[in-house]
Amino acid sequence: MGNLNFLHGGNIYEIKRNFKKEIIDFSANINPLGLPYSLKKYLYKNMKSIEHYPDYEAKSLIKKISKYWKVKEENILLGNGSVELIYLIVNTFKPKTTVIPVPTFSEYERATKAINSKIKFLKLKENENFKLNLSIFPKIDMFFICNPNNPTGNLIIDRFETIRRISCKLFVIDEAFMDFLPDEDIHTAIWEAIKGKNIIVLRTFTKFFSLPGLRIGYLISHKDIIDKLKKNLPPWNINSLAQLAAEFILNKKEYIKKTHKIIEEERDFLFKELSKIEGLKVYPSVTNFILIKIEKPGLFSYSLKKLLIPKGFLIRDCSNFRNLNNKYIRIAVRSNGENSKFITALKEVLCKK
Amino acid sequence: MGNLNFLHGGNIYEIKRNFKKEIIDFSANINPLGLPYSLKKYLYKNMKSIEHYPDYEAKSLIKKISKYWKVKEENILLGNGSVELIYLIVNTFKPKTTVIPVPTFSEYERATKAINSKIKFLKLKENENFKLNLSIFPKIDMFFICNPNNPTGNLIIDRFETIRRISCKLFVIDEAFMDFLPDEDIHTAIWEAIKGKNIIVLRTFTKFFSLPGLRIGYLISHKDIIDKLKKNLPPWNINSLAQLAAEFILNKKEYIKKTHKIIEEERDFLFKELSKIEGLKVYPSVTNFILIKIEKPGLFSYSLKKLLIPKGFLIRDCSNFRNLNNKYIRIAVRSNGENSKFITALKEVLCKK
Repeated sequence: MGNLNFLHGGNIYEIKRNFKKEIIDFSANINPLGLPYSLKKYLYKNMKSIEHYPDYEAKSLIKKISKYWKVKEENILLGNGSVELIYLIVNTFKPKTTVIPVPTFSEYERATKAINSKIKFLKLKENENFKLNLSIFPKIDMFFICNPNNPTGNLIIDRFETIRRISCKLFVIDEAFMDFLPDEDIHTAIWEAIKGKNIIVLRTFTKFFSLPGLRIGYLISHKDIIDKLKKNLPPWNINSLAQLAAEFILNKKEYIKKTHKIIEEERDFLFKELSKIEGLKVYPSVTNFILIKIEKPGLFSYSLKKLLIPKGFLIRDCSNFRNLNNKYIRIAVRSNGENSKFITALKEVLCKK
Repeated sequence: MGNLNFLHGGNIYEIKRNFKKEIIDFSANINPLGLPYSLKKYLYKNMKSIEHYPDYEAKSLIKKISKYWKVKEENILLGNGSVELIYLIVNTFKPKTTVIPVPTFSEYERATKAINSKIKFLKLKENENFKLNLSIFPKIDMFFICNPNNPTGNLIIDRFETIRRISCKLFVIDEAFMDFLPDEDIHTAIWEAIKGKNIIVLRTFTKFFSLPGLRIGYLISHKDIIDKLKKNLPPWNINSLAQLAAEFILNKKEYIKKTHKIIEEERDFLFKELSKIEGLKVYPSVTNFILIKIEKPGLFSYSLKKLLIPKGFLIRDCSNFRNLNNKYIRIAVRSNGENSKFITALKEVLCKK
C-alpha cells in the first residue's frame, strides 16, 4: 500500500522498524492524555467479548451517542473509523462532481477518485487565513468540508449556515477535530444535519477520545440518508472492544474537561515558543495540531523531518498535501514535557542549519 | 438494522437484553476452545497500541500469514472480517451476473443485491447431499462458493479443479470453515488462486481462531486482483488488537491440533446423540456445526428455538436461509459439557411436544 504511505506521510511503524528506537509521534493528532488506566482495566475485564460476534446493532453505544448529542438513535451510523464512512458515502451516492477545498485530509480525494468522480479542488489561500471563499460556485453533487480543517487547524467555515445557499446534493462535513473546541456546540453542523436531507456530519473517537487503534467513528444525518447507507454497509463492522471503549469514555466528563484544558495551555505554549523561532511562520489553530511554514531558505519539510527523527521526534511533512508544498510541516499538541523537549530539539536542529 | 436481524437469525445481544440470563450460544459457529489465556494477557500488555493508529500495512501479520501458507505477501489482503472483503470485491468488480448456490451465507446475496447484480440462485438438493451440480452452466461474472458450505456443513466441491471449466470472470471461494478440516491442504483453492487471475479465496480468523469480536479476515488471490481491490479499501481497516491477536494465535500449533481433536470428537458425539432422537434428521458435517431437519409434524424451527431459550440455549433457526424452510435448524459443535447439556435439554423439549 505504498500509495497510502505517500498520502499520509510517515508511518510510525515503518520508522520504528528502520530506526529501532523510541519515537515521540508529533505526526498523528491524538489526545495527549492518552487513555485512562480505568479504560484499559475495563477492556481487560471484558476481553471475553472478542470470542463473540460484536453486537451489529451496537444498541448500547448508539443509545449513549444519542443521549450525548440529544439526537435520535435513527440519526446515527457507526463506522470502522470515520474513514470507512467516507468510502461508504462515496460508494452509495456516487457523486459525478465533487468539490474539495485544499489543503485537506487526503481520503476525500482517494475515495472519490476510486469511483471516477470529477473533482474540483478549491484552493484555500494563505492570505485569506485558509478560510473558505464562496464567491462563485457551480452546481455540485458532493462537497467535502473538513471543519476544523486538517492540516490548517482553523475553522474554514464558522457555522454551517454560511454555505447553505450553495446548490449541492450532499454536504459531507468532517468534524474529526471539532470536539477540541470547548464551544463546539455553536460551530457543529449536527443540528442542521438531522433536519436537512443533504448534510452528513462525520465524527470520530480517534482524535479527542484517543482511540485510533480500535477504529471507531460515526456519522449523524437524516434517517433517509442513513437507511440508504446501511444497505451497502457490511455487518459487524464495529469490533466488540471499540464498542465497549467508546461507550466507556464518552461519559467521562472529567476527561473531556481535562483535555480542553491541556490542549489550550499546550497549544498556547507551542504557539508562543514556535513563533519566537526565527525562520518559522506559525498559523493559529483552534484544535490539537499546528501548521508551520519553514521560511528559512534552503530548508525543506522533508529534511527537517529527517533531522528530527534521530532526535526521537516524528513530525508531519506536509509536502504531499495538495496546495501546500515542501515548506510546510504539521505538529500535534502533546503533553508539556514532550512539547518542551520538542522545542529544544527543533531549536538545536535549526541552529545547525 | 432489522434486515440484518432477519438475515442472520438470533442476535445473542438482543436475546440477552430480553431474557436477562446466561445463554449458551449454539447459533454462532466459533471454536469451542475459546481464546488461550496467554492471548488475553498478551493483548492487555499491548493495550497501549490502541492509542496509536494501526499499522495500515499490517506488515508483521501479513508476513506471518505469508509464511503460514507459503504464498507471497503480495497475494494477501486483510479485511475487517472477511465480510468487509465480500463487499469490497462486489463493489470493485461490479458483477452484472452472479451465481450463488443456496442455502448459503446470506451476505453474498446482500452485497450483490446492493449493486443490482442479476443473481441466479443454484439450488443445492438434499437428495444430492447438498453437493454442487454443474451439469448446465451459462457464462457468468461472479460465482460465490462457500466451501465447506454454511449451513449444510459439507464440502460442496471437493477440489477447485471440479469447477475450473465453468466460464466465469471471478470465482469467490469463501473458506471460512476450511481450517476445521485437518486435510484442508487438499481441498483449499489457495494454490489455484495465486496462479489464476479469476479466483479469490476468503479466509478468516473469526471461526477457527475464535476472534469474531475483533474482526479480522483476509483473502488470497493474484497480485493484479489485489491491487485493484486496494484502491477502494479504506486505510487502517484492521484495528491494532486484531493484528496483534491474529499474529499471536496463528503460530499456536498446539491450539490448532487441540481444536481439530475436540471438533472431531464432539461432532461425532453430537451426530450420534442427535441421530438417536426420533423426529430429527441429522446431516453429516466436515466442520464445526451441524444441520438438522425437524421431521416431527407440527414442530417448526422457530418454535424449537423459542423452547430452548428458557433452557439456556440459543440455536440457529434456518428458516430464513434461501432454499431451506421452517423445518431446519443449525447447531455449533461446542465443548463436551455444553453439548451433553444441550442434548438433554433438546430431548426434554422434544418429549413435551
